[in-house]
Amino acid sequence: MNFFDDNFLLKSKTSQQLYHEYAKSMPIFDFHCHLQPEEIYENKNFADITEAWLKGDHYKWRIMRSCGIDEHYITGDADSFEKFQAFAEAVNYAVGSPIYHWAHMELKTFFGINEPLTADNAKEIFDKVNALLATDDFKLRTFIKKSNVKAIITTDDPIDTLEYHTKLKEDKSWDVSVLPAFRPDKAINIELKTFVDYIKTLAKVAGGSIESIDGLEKALVERIDYFVKNGCVASDHGITYVPYAETDKSVADKILKKALAGQQLDISEIDAYKTYLLQFLAGEYKKRDWVMEIHYGVIRNINSPMFVKLGPDTGFDTIGNIDSVGNLALLFDSLSERENLPKTMVFNINPNDNYPVATLIGGFQDGGKMQFGTAWWFNDHINGMNAQINTLADVGVLGKFLGMLTDSRSFLSYPRHDYFRRILCNIVGRWMEDGLYNPNLKNAGKIVQDICYTNAIEYFEI
Amino acid sequence: MNFFDDNFLLKSKTSQQLYHEYAKSMPIFDFHCHLQPEEIYENKNFADITEAWLKGDHYKWRIMRSCGIDEHYITGDADSFEKFQAFAEAVNYAVGSPIYHWAHMELKTFFGINEPLTADNAKEIFDKVNALLATDDFKLRTFIKKSNVKAIITTDDPIDTLEYHTKLKEDKSWDVSVLPAFRPDKAINIELKTFVDYIKTLAKVAGGSIESIDGLEKALVERIDYFVKNGCVASDHGITYVPYAETDKSVADKILKKALAGQQLDISEIDAYKTYLLQFLAGEYKKRDWVMEIHYGVIRNINSPMFVKLGPDTGFDTIGNIDSVGNLALLFDSLSERENLPKTMVFNINPNDNYPVATLIGGFQDGGKMQFGTAWWFNDHINGMNAQINTLADVGVLGKFLGMLTDSRSFLSYPRHDYFRRILCNIVGRWMEDGLYNPNLKNAGKIVQDICYTNAIEYFEI
Amino acid sequence: MNFFDDNFLLKSKTSQQLYHEYAKSMPIFDFHCHLQPEEIYENKNFADITEAWLKGDHYKWRIMRSCGIDEHYITGDADSFEKFQAFAEAVNYAVGSPIYHWAHMELKTFFGINEPLTADNAKEIFDKVNALLATDDFKLRTFIKKSNVKAIITTDDPIDTLEYHTKLKEDKSWDVSVLPAFRPDKAINIELKTFVDYIKTLAKVAGGSIESIDGLEKALVERIDYFVKNGCVASDHGITYVPYAETDKSVADKILKKALAGQQLDISEIDAYKTYLLQFLAGEYKKRDWVMEIHYGVIRNINSPMFVKLGPDTGFDTIGNIDSVGNLALLFDSLSERENLPKTMVFNINPNDNYPVATLIGGFQDGGKMQFGTAWWFNDHINGMNAQINTLADVGVLGKFLGMLTDSRSFLSYPRHDYFRRILCNIVGRWMEDGLYNPNLKNAGKIVQDICYTNAIEYFEI
Repeated sequence: MNFFDDNFLLKSKTSQQLYHEYAKSMPIFDFHCHLQPEEIYENKNFADITEAWLKGDHYKWRIMRSCGIDEHYITGDADSFEKFQAFAEAVNYAVGSPIYHWAHMELKTFFGINEPLTADNAKEIFDKVNALLATDDFKLRTFIKKSNVKAIITTDDPIDTLEYHTKLKEDKSWDVSVLPAFRPDKAINIELKTFVDYIKTLAKVAGGSIESIDGLEKALVERIDYFVKNGCVASDHGITYVPYAETDKSVADKILKKALAGQQLDISEIDAYKTYLLQFLAGEYKKRDWVMEIHYGVIRNINSPMFVKLGPDTGFDTIGNIDSVGNLALLFDSLSERENLPKTMVFNINPNDNYPVATLIGGFQDGGKMQFGTAWWFNDHINGMNAQINTLADVGVLGKFLGMLTDSRSFLSYPRHDYFRRILCNIVGRWMEDGLYNPNLKNAGKIVQDICYTNAIEYFEI
Repeated sequence: MNFFDDNFLLKSKTSQQLYHEYAKSMPIFDFHCHLQPEEIYENKNFADITEAWLKGDHYKWRIMRSCGIDEHYITGDADSFEKFQAFAEAVNYAVGSPIYHWAHMELKTFFGINEPLTADNAKEIFDKVNALLATDDFKLRTFIKKSNVKAIITTDDPIDTLEYHTKLKEDKSWDVSVLPAFRPDKAINIELKTFVDYIKTLAKVAGGSIESIDGLEKALVERIDYFVKNGCVASDHGITYVPYAETDKSVADKILKKALAGQQLDISEIDAYKTYLLQFLAGEYKKRDWVMEIHYGVIRNINSPMFVKLGPDTGFDTIGNIDSVGNLALLFDSLSERENLPKTMVFNINPNDNYPVATLIGGFQDGGKMQFGTAWWFNDHINGMNAQINTLADVGVLGKFLGMLTDSRSFLSYPRHDYFRRILCNIVGRWMEDGLYNPNLKNAGKIVQDICYTNAIEYFEI
Repeated sequence: MNFFDDNFLLKSKTSQQLYHEYAKSMPIFDFHCHLQPEEIYENKNFADITEAWLKGDHYKWRIMRSCGIDEHYITGDADSFEKFQAFAEAVNYAVGSPIYHWAHMELKTFFGINEPLTADNAKEIFDKVNALLATDDFKLRTFIKKSNVKAIITTDDPIDTLEYHTKLKEDKSWDVSVLPAFRPDKAINIELKTFVDYIKTLAKVAGGSIESIDGLEKALVERIDYFVKNGCVASDHGITYVPYAETDKSVADKILKKALAGQQLDISEIDAYKTYLLQFLAGEYKKRDWVMEIHYGVIRNINSPMFVKLGPDTGFDTIGNIDSVGNLALLFDSLSERENLPKTMVFNINPNDNYPVATLIGGFQDGGKMQFGTAWWFNDHINGMNAQINTLADVGVLGKFLGMLTDSRSFLSYPRHDYFRRILCNIVGRWMEDGLYNPNLKNAGKIVQDICYTNAIEYFEI
């Protein structure tokens, strides 16, 4: 049986060599994820595999819902084993799914279990994993250490105290860098009902008041500098679509004041405000040589009854189709004209945007500062990664790619880097065997290592 | 020569086992097609292969037109053999086309002819097939029986009497279920010139008058119930794009009255009316536990001179690019909020919508009621099916897929189910051999059988 | 080592036979390129490989920029070898890029160098190639002759004198047809600042004045007839998106006069004017049995600072996402209704439009006059060509395809035809071996030859 064996996904001899001799042993720099530094700091044990796997993992919830499983066994009151049993039944139907692949890679990597999870062996695996999880060898931090992770960048709100980032830095027993990323979405999403309250909190945290665009800028800069002090080198923006409506500061100021006064904004005002603020922030990032990450295209919370019931990030987001390509070009151009375009990574959720985005970034390189981000979220599977890697190879330069990140809330997600590395090595090795690239293994091995780790370390300058 | 041999499309041993041991023998439930129940009932012989293959088959007409063949040999007055000869010449250029594949699968399956159709052997094949078609063994019904079809769902207008569905049900010599589907497009497409006349006919058939939205709803419900009595479990909607403009009944009423009075509507009125009526109908389907099928994205009759000459469904439709993804999300959400979202299958014609749609339906499962429909019409080929199956595997759950339907007007189209099954088995078998899925053949075989037949039977509850 | 060996890209025996026995020896008809006839006429030697490869080749510049190389080594003052060295370093990172493939195919085909270009051997290769380039055997024309080119169609402005086309025709030592194509973009792009000046020049060249739409039409017809006299059989249109706003001559006249008077136009006026003029020109092309080529979807000059610095065509264009599919259908329909639709080839830059466009053209064949153009510019790579060929096979008729063109400014680009032919033979041969197409080699060989050369010769009627 070759079920997830040493050479899975590696279909040529050269691919296997690239992976085993070059890629596999590289450390991990997970430059975008949603781990909670508090949890890393506290370093607890998971109660059981249901907590480790099913609590908060909306990827797995979606699989279960698509199998018709009742919410009782997903987010409801069913007991721990009932939930695991339900997932085991569901995952068997998820033929070809990345959830299937990840689950079995995680079982093998961390728990030495290398057999298909089914309804029949669910109890046995449940017990076996739970026994391991209860030991000191399976505290939260060990998943990070066993995965050879050197650095992690979390995702943080400007109002965050970064308390646990600091504590982790001061913890002598811990040598993995855990750095914050600055994600000011709530200051940008002026159309949300929560905006005014958020601005009040931001003002308080920044130690001032925000009654104008000047006040907002001052507060954000204060927070940016606070993040700098805590090791931050990256920002992140999650946006439904890329706005572009050129405006000036006085107009942005009026729009902000209108919003703070509780008045309704129209779409052109919303776009103008967002454009202005994105441009302002980009300039601040540029000054500090930060990386700006843009994740765009997700429509969130599409199912209102379930949103009321479960809140955000529970499996009710989807791939949007609103065109952002034209606006991305205009936004980057406006930043270029002001010499305010920072190092920038673009992550599109709609795979239809792969070619347009990968081509677009090639028009603003100026020293190699633009990056086409790896296949993300709904694209984080063999087909999606193959498509992203091929697109970058076709219209950009694959050898300068920053490679994988987990984007995960789970401590068990690091095998996704292994998944990515296998897919990458499979592609490059195949091209070498086909006579389409330099057959020198050392040369290709170095490029693979660059993509797996070194390029990202150099780009983020950590 | 392995030309369309027993293992075509099956590239791994496990794929071959899955197909031959599990998929091949499964019955067919063709849950969406355009067969005429009258023709099934009458059970005639075809005059010849030209009638069986070329009369009304706009797929084949398009191939011929792309080869520069004059309309005389396509829809014109050329004689039966001239038309067949012209098609034989054309199909040889259609390298890689599903039309090439289907033609040769049909020749092999029904007529035992397993050689490439060319200009040279056209006469020989014409004569051989015609001789068979003239026999009792090749009456229309035999194509259905030989294909192991257990049930068929046709496509019917609300005003249809369903006379032949009834006759077929009462025919003791016939044991294949032939059920109607309710397709109220003409009641929804308020912008068409034919709308007012259609509403008058609908009123007459439903035994009332339609002068308001109340009257229309009453008439449609009468017809829905009439369809229920005739075994209907499914509706179908063919729409150019998915509208979403929330409105209320009084506004919809005004818009309808305006249309009935012969007044011009603007686009916002058209969208509001359509949204309202789709929501109303969805609620009625939900009450009756019907399946709602949505086929969207086709731009029809793009060539006006040919439309004048030949009418609709003659090969002049195309893949549209109007975004429907955002509106699908809003429409489904509005139905969820009212608890009116029925079991729903979405079929997109633009393959760019595969990932967005497959992801979107995952947000409304609620017991597994949403389905990403199989690759359809212009996507009904190896690449299209591979893409659809892979997309569903990537972002949904492949094992719960309802699989294939013919969508065909032709009695000879059932080998398309075989085509689909081979493609499916090829994919799943390959993943098993690659160590990416449980190698247990029985387990995978059961899932393949579910997709080929069982899932659809259970979903439609027939 | 099989590095770019005789069978590269040819993965099955039948594919190899198709290529070596049928495709390889076919002549080239490069029916769309940007070669300068003056350069062909003058037939100089290149100064060195840097001039031959890096001067003006924005494909290579993009690779270098994505590697972070300073503009000094790209378009700046670095010396010839420094630039070549910088490219050699960059191309090694371009794993999987068509630039990597083309570079090595060109090195092998023209200079007998069959090893990977790297930083280490850059000097050696630089010297070796330069020595060859200095000889009579490597004058510009020899690249064309060695590539077995029979005919070339260049891209020319209506105001062009076509002087060098004439001289080449009269040159007894030269037997390759070099024909002009009529590209009236500047007369159509009424929104550009350069429009008024261009119209003045056009008027002068056409020997009249242009103060109305009548005057413009007369001038364009004069130039069309002048192009006809110089062997022109094709027009070309490069448009950001396909406009469609039906209007009449009197309105178009008013809009033109407004533009000539220096007044600002709104978008609906711009679209109306463009639609009118495209329709007018299409009718003129139809009368003369010309081919109309439409290249659409590129957003040009997205980086303003670099545009100011380097001008157009320097690597700052990208793939747009504006929907043109609906308008293409309406435009073609409007032309069909007037019997003014000429032979038409559509080239989309956004690969998402492959299926919609390939399907759309099938609705206007009328004797086989519509063509889905080959994968172009940002799609001119293995994946892009595979996608275009498969799409055409899936929804059109591959055997009637016109095949490859270089679209290039470089005399060394002809191996791209070889690249295309290998990809084509690889696909068709694989299908034959898989039992999906007639295994008769002669039959398939003839179709491959049609696609490589004959279909285009017949379509353009040269």
